[in-house]
Amino acid sequence: MKEFQLIENFFSGRGPLRRDVLLGIGDDCAVVQPAVNKSLAISVDTLVENVHFLPAMPAADLGYKALAVNLSDLASMGAEPAWMTLALTLPEPDELWLRRFSEGLLDAAEYYGIALVGGDTTRGPKSITITVNGQVPEDKALTRGGAKAGDWIYVTGTLGDSALGLQLLQGKHDARSEHREYLIGRHYRPTPRVLAGQCLRGLASSAIDLSDGLMSDIGHVLKASGVGAVVKVEDLPLSQAMQDTVSPEFAQSLALTGGEDYELLFTVPEAQKGALETSLSQSGVKFVKIGQICAGNQLKLLKDGEPFTPENLGFEHF
Amino acid sequence: MKEFQLIENFFSGRGPLRRDVLLGIGDDCAVVQPAVNKSLAISVDTLVENVHFLPAMPAADLGYKALAVNLSDLASMGAEPAWMTLALTLPEPDELWLRRFSEGLLDAAEYYGIALVGGDTTRGPKSITITVNGQVPEDKALTRGGAKAGDWIYVTGTLGDSALGLQLLQGKHDARSEHREYLIGRHYRPTPRVLAGQCLRGLASSAIDLSDGLMSDIGHVLKASGVGAVVKVEDLPLSQAMQDTVSPEFAQSLALTGGEDYELLFTVPEAQKGALETSLSQSGVKFVKIGQICAGNQLKLLKDGEPFTPENLGFEHF
Repeated sequence: MKEFQLIENFFSGRGPLRRDVLLGIGDDCAVVQPAVNKSLAISVDTLVENVHFLPAMPAADLGYKALAVNLSDLASMGAEPAWMTLALTLPEPDELWLRRFSEGLLDAAEYYGIALVGGDTTRGPKSITITVNGQVPEDKALTRGGAKAGDWIYVTGTLGDSALGLQLLQGKHDARSEHREYLIGRHYRPTPRVLAGQCLRGLASSAIDLSDGLMSDIGHVLKASGVGAVVKVEDLPLSQAMQDTVSPEFAQSLALTGGEDYELLFTVPEAQKGALETSLSQSGVKFVKIGQICAGNQLKLLKDGEPFTPENLGFEHF
Repeated sequence: MKEFQLIENFFSGRGPLRRDVLLGIGDDCAVVQPAVNKSLAISVDTLVENVHFLPAMPAADLGYKALAVNLSDLASMGAEPAWMTLALTLPEPDELWLRRFSEGLLDAAEYYGIALVGGDTTRGPKSITITVNGQVPEDKALTRGGAKAGDWIYVTGTLGDSALGLQLLQGKHDARSEHREYLIGRHYRPTPRVLAGQCLRGLASSAIDLSDGLMSDIGHVLKASGVGAVVKVEDLPLSQAMQDTVSPEFAQSLALTGGEDYELLFTVPEAQKGALETSLSQSGVKFVKIGQICAGNQLKLLKDGEPFTPENLGFEHF
């Protein structure tokens, strides 16, 4: 099958219609029209087989997740998804796999309103690279760098579910069937907090998405902002499925280090706390205060007032 | 080595400074400011080891070429390079390789004025995916779809050099040392016709960059435009190095099917021919008329008035 036909067969003429896409897939470049008075947020993520996903991962879930992890980066900046490119490397053109992968990817694309405008398909070991473009009002992009001592620390959703879902897939735990379905779903189909991120604009002092695990990711905020933090481990939000499946200590360790939550962590000054809670509750996403920014450069974990050291379950490429 | 450090060590704070980059590498997204009254051209290309390049390819050349092939897509739309992301997958973090690769990539980035604003580094089989963003005045993007019967067909530069350079590397021919250096240079360091592409805006009726070989690529123009073409094989531009190294027939076959030229092919109506030649000569790039668009949907190759069939040397992924 010819290279351009792969893209055309499975991805052209589908996904959301955006009037700002002047020229879609099929020429040397796509051409899109940026909105006036907005900046462009750009991010790229690669998923490699046997590194980021196992060969057994269902193709539709992989397509969904490959986009979702990129949308999570846009969410953390408060940006609205707009356009994306897909670079797909496959050992062979497996049409059934491609149909399912493209369905999952385009499901996510339609839900979040992002148009696939360009692609490249190559032969090689299976990997997926997606570059996303989002738009954010000028000077309103959220960054990791604005947290100040005294700001409150919040997270959306519940933490650790994805890591526990992976452990269920690996046969390391047992869970009731509805919990198992929920937790594996959290691993395969993360929910980027796109609307929540937009609700934080002008209110949060910093934001980041939780991809590597809370401890690792909050470290990026502390470094970029030049501050420290105290996190109360007993306040970390845990799902019922998590609580019913593992011990509290193990659940808290997963919540701190498990990774792949794709929830938002953000900080908010006391003066904006009420306005932010009002704004964010409109997004329909659960959120909870888990700690406070302080002077220094250290992260302190307290559980019922005592220092807490999690079992280290984090991961890092290279 | 930690993932983000790879990117930060080798790519941060280098390459061209652009005032429209509001936030560069290091946060969840980059943030850039699109120009007013311009559209955005977007393209992505992946290079996979053992598919698009051999393990022996010097890292600096690979970095240069990985960007150049993407810039060639921007050139064919008449777009000005602006920002890019790099997704780099490596079996291991080889610092020497990374230093050389980044030098080559950033050499090209500086020359063409494109800022690296985001990246992802992952472990896996070696491959490089670059997504480029360029800007083009609204409604001025060149496409494959505007050629009309009677339009003249032009190409920039000389054709077939890259394919012959590859064959020299494979030991299939001998060449004088200065020719060898030139031809291998054309294979390793293509020259995207970025300025030439901008000179074509408002004058050319269609444009495409030559990546798969002239016969394959002109086919895209004919299909998108709903036309046929006659190309005079004796008018194909051949370098002195090419002419001194292989027979005329072999040279013409390489020029038609060899691929990886990264020159521009474009069409121009008779009424714009003079204006286009004046505009394009300002770019400093050689260009030559090689044929004419006609009715129908076929490509006819004529050599001294007789039908010509090249030796098929083209390539296609999958």
